[in-house]
Amino acid sequence: MDASSPNEAVILLHCPDQPGIVARVANCLDKIGGNILDAVQHTDFESGTFLQRLHVSWPQHDSDEQVVRDAFTALKRDLNLNWRLQWSHTPRRVAIFVSREDHCLHDLLLLRRDGDLHCKISLIISNHADLEDVAKRFGVPYHHVPMEFPGDPDGEAEQLTLLKEHNIDLVVLARYMQVLSARFIAAYESRIINIHHSFLPAFAGGSPYRQAHEKGVKLIGATAHFATAALDDGPIIEQGVTRVSHRDSVHDMVRKGRDIERTVLARAVRWYLQDRVIVHKGRAVVFE
Amino acid sequence: MDASSPNEAVILLHCPDQPGIVARVANCLDKIGGNILDAVQHTDFESGTFLQRLHVSWPQHDSDEQVVRDAFTALKRDLNLNWRLQWSHTPRRVAIFVSREDHCLHDLLLLRRDGDLHCKISLIISNHADLEDVAKRFGVPYHHVPMEFPGDPDGEAEQLTLLKEHNIDLVVLARYMQVLSARFIAAYESRIINIHHSFLPAFAGGSPYRQAHEKGVKLIGATAHFATAALDDGPIIEQGVTRVSHRDSVHDMVRKGRDIERTVLARAVRWYLQDRVIVHKGRAVVFE
Amino acid sequence: MDASSPNEAVILLHCPDQPGIVARVANCLDKIGGNILDAVQHTDFESGTFLQRLHVSWPQHDSDEQVVRDAFTALKRDLNLNWRLQWSHTPRRVAIFVSREDHCLHDLLLLRRDGDLHCKISLIISNHADLEDVAKRFGVPYHHVPMEFPGDPDGEAEQLTLLKEHNIDLVVLARYMQVLSARFIAAYESRIINIHHSFLPAFAGGSPYRQAHEKGVKLIGATAHFATAALDDGPIIEQGVTRVSHRDSVHDMVRKGRDIERTVLARAVRWYLQDRVIVHKGRAVVFE
Amino acid sequence: MDASSPNEAVILLHCPDQPGIVARVANCLDKIGGNILDAVQHTDFESGTFLQRLHVSWPQHDSDEQVVRDAFTALKRDLNLNWRLQWSHTPRRVAIFVSREDHCLHDLLLLRRDGDLHCKISLIISNHADLEDVAKRFGVPYHHVPMEFPGDPDGEAEQLTLLKEHNIDLVVLARYMQVLSARFIAAYESRIINIHHSFLPAFAGGSPYRQAHEKGVKLIGATAHFATAALDDGPIIEQGVTRVSHRDSVHDMVRKGRDIERTVLARAVRWYLQDRVIVHKGRAVVFE
Repeated sequence: MDASSPNEAVILLHCPDQPGIVARVANCLDKIGGNILDAVQHTDFESGTFLQRLHVSWPQHDSDEQVVRDAFTALKRDLNLNWRLQWSHTPRRVAIFVSREDHCLHDLLLLRRDGDLHCKISLIISNHADLEDVAKRFGVPYHHVPMEFPGDPDGEAEQLTLLKEHNIDLVVLARYMQVLSARFIAAYESRIINIHHSFLPAFAGGSPYRQAHEKGVKLIGATAHFATAALDDGPIIEQGVTRVSHRDSVHDMVRKGRDIERTVLARAVRWYLQDRVIVHKGRAVVFE
Repeated sequence: MDASSPNEAVILLHCPDQPGIVARVANCLDKIGGNILDAVQHTDFESGTFLQRLHVSWPQHDSDEQVVRDAFTALKRDLNLNWRLQWSHTPRRVAIFVSREDHCLHDLLLLRRDGDLHCKISLIISNHADLEDVAKRFGVPYHHVPMEFPGDPDGEAEQLTLLKEHNIDLVVLARYMQVLSARFIAAYESRIINIHHSFLPAFAGGSPYRQAHEKGVKLIGATAHFATAALDDGPIIEQGVTRVSHRDSVHDMVRKGRDIERTVLARAVRWYLQDRVIVHKGRAVVFE
Repeated sequence: MDASSPNEAVILLHCPDQPGIVARVANCLDKIGGNILDAVQHTDFESGTFLQRLHVSWPQHDSDEQVVRDAFTALKRDLNLNWRLQWSHTPRRVAIFVSREDHCLHDLLLLRRDGDLHCKISLIISNHADLEDVAKRFGVPYHHVPMEFPGDPDGEAEQLTLLKEHNIDLVVLARYMQVLSARFIAAYESRIINIHHSFLPAFAGGSPYRQAHEKGVKLIGATAHFATAALDDGPIIEQGVTRVSHRDSVHDMVRKGRDIERTVLARAVRWYLQDRVIVHKGRAVVFE
Repeated sequence: MDASSPNEAVILLHCPDQPGIVARVANCLDKIGGNILDAVQHTDFESGTFLQRLHVSWPQHDSDEQVVRDAFTALKRDLNLNWRLQWSHTPRRVAIFVSREDHCLHDLLLLRRDGDLHCKISLIISNHADLEDVAKRFGVPYHHVPMEFPGDPDGEAEQLTLLKEHNIDLVVLARYMQVLSARFIAAYESRIINIHHSFLPAFAGGSPYRQAHEKGVKLIGATAHFATAALDDGPIIEQGVTRVSHRDSVHDMVRKGRDIERTVLARAVRWYLQDRVIVHKGRAVVFE
């Protein structure tokens, strides 16, 4: 269920585990008129951490941002709490990076058009001019930013300027075939979602379908993950696979892989936009 | 995670939806020293019902059954609450019904032996003598209760006597090929789990693989559901499918189906024993 | 592998089973210079029928249609053979029928554009005007043929005229929400592929996701099948499923179902266009 | 379909690709009275290799081994053919290697008992005494061969003696937790099937579920492959996956993984015993 009514918000929190957290958080919300529509939690016993997602509404009156912030600031002190609040009336602003392949881009644009992604797709950035007409059809600004080489500082500076101008909250690499610099990634830490066309950690790096074909695997996959400075190694949000056989050429794998890539990326982006994802100790906890 | 420590319990509850339930239940538990290890909930908006599963521990002292009962009785009054509590130190007592096929039986016995089903398998009842040696190997009493015809009152009376003698909490029909009478099912309402060898509601009744073969479906399945008076029509707990083609004979489907049947049944039984299943409005809510 | 080189063809045949068919067919092709690139066969023991798909090339010279026809006519007599030949240099002409939902349409158009469907999409016919702009973007003629009621003879007459004018070989019902008359279906027997948004035979007819939600199934599916006079009951070409839970509303099921629908339909259409599908005794044999 | 009638055989062959092979092989069989029940082939265009599996019967008279051998020896010369023939009346002799976990062992023994594996399970060899009673129940000789360290030459010598005494055709490593020496593997090249509890090439080596948990993957898998001198790197026969989440501990993954391991291993062993597997250029072609 999308959190889209005016008086609703999703709160994501984590803190050191101790008895009574659920009751204290529930009470805190109850006192300020918040009703818990949905709550899901996880305790990571290895690190002794409590993590929770709360979908909250203020049914009887308009929620007052400051009241909520004050209440959670007190809680933060007592429980050593990390928390984040996202109102449903302010959809996030998303930038999509693409290169030449458009299957993931099409999927995200259609989902957004059908109301199945709670966000505003503010702009599309590409290192190629090819997909400008796709952007046009859906009325999204398209910026062609050529990259002379991976991490080209001029190109990245232009990209970062665009992201700032549009107040971008989330960058989606929808088969963007350029490695980003560590500096770029640091600027949007845990806010860049990439789709890699293999079942990571198998076949990281280039030409994963060729690698898969050479290895003779019987399933190929795709992995949506947060981009980190280490290539194809960030926290995994979602994965999927499909069956292949000796009859499938690399080209067949590329074709079959497209269905998995777009589905896996769309799920990861939807979950992020629904505030279902927390990165904790290098892994993504996904409250599906 | 299995609820198996001495001071732990799972509480399943449902009540008419209203603001503040989560906070009130959490407070109620907090006051009597209960710590919520895990909580998951669902609101059925169609019927206006709130449903919740709580995994609770009493870390600082032994939990006192009566204290918990008193606290929830008060809550029950205020919230019009249905609730059920299951202590983890009292594993449920299970009876398995079989006929001649033993793949599901073997799976359940091995899972129990490996500590992956939190229960005591108290007895095995069959309308045939064939599987007595399997029962023996695992040290479970085996009762051969012949049935002259489906719902044979003499046979069922003997079965019901056995179930009562062993204080059975859950009956698992692990490919038991006899239709039970409405009277029998009523005696164990929502406590009889059956595995049907098709993807229900397709191919209810007899010979589902033959039906599937004749229809030419490309996937066959299995369905674990609560038995109700209407044949193969009770609340569905879990389903699975596997791929078939024109090359598969009915015999091949039977063989492929076994893997799905045992896996689906084992999941359904595990979830039930972990108190993850609530029947509501004729459907099973499963808090996986 | 698509059969797309100039001197290649796919031959689909079936005949009463008897020893020696494979050798005789192989010899027949060898004598006229045909090289078997791929052969796959199936024997239906119930009906005593041999079925085969042959992918043949004529490497040393241009294949002569008449020579092939003569050779197979002789074989037809001896073996009581049904056979069909499709040259790869003449892609089939396809008409897509749609209503208002465009996810399947988009998928087919993108696959065609990327060279992953071996056909010409000659026209799109709809009972609504909504999707005209999609058709335009891909340069495919769009015909809005309003239907006053299901099977409206005026509308169907117009549709049939269009199909004849364009020499259509295959009609794809890509979420076309109108029941076709038996007369229409008879005119394109085994040449109309429909996508039904359920795992048939479960939930035939209208609102299958609503039916699935009410039943509380744990998997939803889609079925691509040949349209026959009996609604949602023709030979099944392909099926797929995806997982759902009590948390999924009917709307969520519709959204999740789209991914399955388009993938299942695209596979069925591709296999048909690769001549991998034979309808035999009311079932579709699919040589994937 | 199992090749189990007295006059039936499966022929696996591969040779440099050239026009006319299918016809020549079919003719060769036709001349010696062989009827092709099923034929499936594959052309590896990269290496220019033709591979084929033929299921043949001699319906009118007993097949004469020498006649077949003579016919194929002539063909071998002409086509530079590698070929192998397996009569269905001589089931292969299989040795199963185990350590302490018995889920794969149980599965193979039950499948054999039910007639779903066409082989004789001649003996079970283990580096532990634990599973002797399982072997006894199924009437299979059990040999406890302790290994002081991986590749212990004394232990391996004893194992190899046992394999020779029993004329073993296939060794199945059913969760045998000892690395075999290169010498041992060379003695049974392409005749040792191992089940590795990860989706290879991810997580080769020890503790794959722990590795998977640390990486935070969303799917875990199992891989059946031929053992080669390089650890966990031989030709892959079959793979499967199942879904996991942050809620799954390493222990949960181990439990969920068992279902995949036994299913994947059973499929690989069945396909091998049905002569559906050819190792070619380091990859396994599987004619499912």
